[in-house]
Amino acid sequence: MNEEKEELEIEEENEPLTTERLKELIDAKDVKSIRDIFVVVPDIDSAVAANDLEPTDLIYLFRCVKPADTATFFDELNQEAKENLVKAMTDRELVQIINTQSVDDVTDVVGEMPANLAQRVLKAADKDMRADINLLLNYKEDTAGSLMTTEYLEFKDTTTVEEAIDAIRKRGKDAETIYTLFVRDKNREFVGTVDLDDLIFSKKDQLLSEIMNQDVVSVKTDTDQEEVGQMFRRYDLNALAVLNQDDRLVGIITIDDAVDVMTEEQSEDFARMTNMEPTEKPYMELTAWENAKKCIPWIVTLLILGTFTTMVLNRLESQTIFLNLPILIAFVPMLMDTGGNAGGQTTGLMIRSLALGEFGPKDVLKVLFKEFRSALIVGASVASFSFLWLMIEQYSGIVSDVKNFPGINIWAGNCWTADFAIHSLRNAGLVGLTMFSAVVASKMIGTLLPMGAAAIKKDPALLSQPLLTTIMDVTTLMIYFSLALAFFPHLA
Amino acid sequence: MNEEKEELEIEEENEPLTTERLKELIDAKDVKSIRDIFVVVPDIDSAVAANDLEPTDLIYLFRCVKPADTATFFDELNQEAKENLVKAMTDRELVQIINTQSVDDVTDVVGEMPANLAQRVLKAADKDMRADINLLLNYKEDTAGSLMTTEYLEFKDTTTVEEAIDAIRKRGKDAETIYTLFVRDKNREFVGTVDLDDLIFSKKDQLLSEIMNQDVVSVKTDTDQEEVGQMFRRYDLNALAVLNQDDRLVGIITIDDAVDVMTEEQSEDFARMTNMEPTEKPYMELTAWENAKKCIPWIVTLLILGTFTTMVLNRLESQTIFLNLPILIAFVPMLMDTGGNAGGQTTGLMIRSLALGEFGPKDVLKVLFKEFRSALIVGASVASFSFLWLMIEQYSGIVSDVKNFPGINIWAGNCWTADFAIHSLRNAGLVGLTMFSAVVASKMIGTLLPMGAAAIKKDPALLSQPLLTTIMDVTTLMIYFSLALAFFPHLA
Repeated sequence: MNEEKEELEIEEENEPLTTERLKELIDAKDVKSIRDIFVVVPDIDSAVAANDLEPTDLIYLFRCVKPADTATFFDELNQEAKENLVKAMTDRELVQIINTQSVDDVTDVVGEMPANLAQRVLKAADKDMRADINLLLNYKEDTAGSLMTTEYLEFKDTTTVEEAIDAIRKRGKDAETIYTLFVRDKNREFVGTVDLDDLIFSKKDQLLSEIMNQDVVSVKTDTDQEEVGQMFRRYDLNALAVLNQDDRLVGIITIDDAVDVMTEEQSEDFARMTNMEPTEKPYMELTAWENAKKCIPWIVTLLILGTFTTMVLNRLESQTIFLNLPILIAFVPMLMDTGGNAGGQTTGLMIRSLALGEFGPKDVLKVLFKEFRSALIVGASVASFSFLWLMIEQYSGIVSDVKNFPGINIWAGNCWTADFAIHSLRNAGLVGLTMFSAVVASKMIGTLLPMGAAAIKKDPALLSQPLLTTIMDVTTLMIYFSLALAFFPHLA
Repeated sequence: MNEEKEELEIEEENEPLTTERLKELIDAKDVKSIRDIFVVVPDIDSAVAANDLEPTDLIYLFRCVKPADTATFFDELNQEAKENLVKAMTDRELVQIINTQSVDDVTDVVGEMPANLAQRVLKAADKDMRADINLLLNYKEDTAGSLMTTEYLEFKDTTTVEEAIDAIRKRGKDAETIYTLFVRDKNREFVGTVDLDDLIFSKKDQLLSEIMNQDVVSVKTDTDQEEVGQMFRRYDLNALAVLNQDDRLVGIITIDDAVDVMTEEQSEDFARMTNMEPTEKPYMELTAWENAKKCIPWIVTLLILGTFTTMVLNRLESQTIFLNLPILIAFVPMLMDTGGNAGGQTTGLMIRSLALGEFGPKDVLKVLFKEFRSALIVGASVASFSFLWLMIEQYSGIVSDVKNFPGINIWAGNCWTADFAIHSLRNAGLVGLTMFSAVVASKMIGTLLPMGAAAIKKDPALLSQPLLTTIMDVTTLMIYFSLALAFFPHLA
């Protein structure tokens, strides 16, 4: 027995809390252990383990936990578990839990609930909160308004430090943050912020207007959430002021929500770059079907777009030049890949830099010029390398021009003829020059597609990659064919 | 005159501060305007504008600014501007500015400086700071140790709330954050944190051990910075404890540094996914040459890897089956693209989920099974679609099998023969089945490559994409060829 107990303890120390462990404790009605767990295990970890419990177990667990822990625990559960809990709670429990939650969090939950549950939650919320939830629900998704909370501390600029500290003691518990206080002037316009540490280090009779930061930034309720992330990143903020069209403060966004938004935006760009539909669900919660559904539309779109390539290649391969020089066909995938890769690099760089706000659509000429110069360097390097590489490929017999030079091979020693040398140089030169043109064209198009999308306020990541591939595949083939005619006029 | 002034004011309101504007004010020796700018413009914005000033203008600007603003302004400058300033400062100025900086920020600057400048900075730092800088410089890049600062507030768990508040008033100005306080027990082991708001709302005689959070997380000095980002994201932290091997607190990481790390890690993954070398420099600061240097190695690597494809295609195209059915060649790019795209989706999903810590290498079987089921769904859908699409392509004449059916076309009305139907069905079936196999194989390899890399503690994004493309191009070709022999035995 003793040994088993020791083993259990070791397990608890090292292993993360699991759903099975919670289920055991619930079945054993071991309230003490459950409470102990909630003291030492972070709420998100216990919530993740609890998400998969049956509703009856979940409500039992919820009722075991000390009231001090229930609020954050509830907040960290996933939507499904929250809905199950709301269904199972008594009216009294619901009133209690909802009114300890942040307005923005309740709003998010309500926004995704079936109407009857949402009604129940709204009824449970006290009058002020209900009004705020209804207000917040009106803001468009992915805007600052939909991210913000209305629970913040705002003071007149004529407030003294002492008055502010008293107010924090009284009203601070309901605020989303007390580390940043917001200051308005007599016209009720937002004019600055006071950090809590500055407040603590100031004299009691100083006015907030004397100690506040005036070099502050803010967003409007309709600002895109990507820009919100950029502001937090650039200005190292703890909280950001959200203003209405009259420059009055109507809400704030806190750093924890901003971090979530940055992660979400990044995942979205990442998904788009790899031709998938973005999703907010974590991978482990996706079903195989949901996962497949994110893939199919884009593969099919790319397949349809790929028809142009098939068409062009189908037409070209029956041209005399390709019938006389089947070796040229063997280089087609490599040429297309290189064009696609070079353009993909640029597209990726554009999408990422636009997302980080490193430049905007207005900088298009500057960026295009820089990419053009880079493209010349990359194109020249890659073309020179591929020229040498193709010579090696041909002389070593890695690829062979069987139709024109059957059986030629460095190992057979029969490759040292002027004819073969000239022919090989032509092949290598053709591929090298095609590669140079493809790299330069591809990097230009790879710049213009995302910049153009950003200019018309579309997601730069949305169509750039698939369109780039299609345009480049066809362009590369056309360049290749035209140059082939010029390089081998006697075989065309 | 009046009109011009008004215009200027409007400009200041809307336009961001530019290097040119600063230069004007410096040339005019307009100290008052410069000081005013520093009150209302956030430090990062004035620093960005100042980065491009000549060293003599920069030091002039620096000397104009009120001492209260110089510390953060200096901190926000880029490395080059900081080095220029350090060169131009008097010893006295240097001592002053260095000792108002955070230890971690000075360490970062010193770490990248030429030795002689670094020596000067270290000499200017006071004894404690110098010791801390030397300590921090020892930690490996990209670990928690290299991110942390040694300036934090730590208390014994027997400290009272009142004592803690007094200590904050006295020592808090030097700390990186006062919003999170760190608590140790009598063995000097880290046991919890106290949030400043909990402190403010507690009774004066309560002990920190009574009010502290015990459900805290921490990292070790050698923890990878990616994991640090995951902790901040998961636990909504303001500051994270960094422990040594004896579980004693040796430093903390604050949210602003964590946000920078998350952004850096994301940009790195993004660059790798698009086959580029990552860089920490913002795009606008990159020269065309630096930009090209990030692209060339990967394009060349991919080109070399592409040799296998060229080789295989070169061998296959002279096989009887392809000589008899040149139309099959026209579908090669589409098949390769589809395989590559399907695998790229999975690789991207793996890389992103691993980066966010949604699963780890130990979950490989669970993930592989989920991807396998998804792959069957995606493969079947795409294959069915491509089957239909190819029938349309063939009957409409978008692609034509000139060698076997010259001049056939729906518009010419000569395509309604049993021979053509059977042949078209065979083509479509062959491509559909190849597509199904390519999608499934590609998604399996796309899962295994990044998971395998993570298992051996390599960056999952590093080689996955290029290797996937190469493996899939060759695999797809081999599947296609084998199936072609089975579908068209009479033409082989």
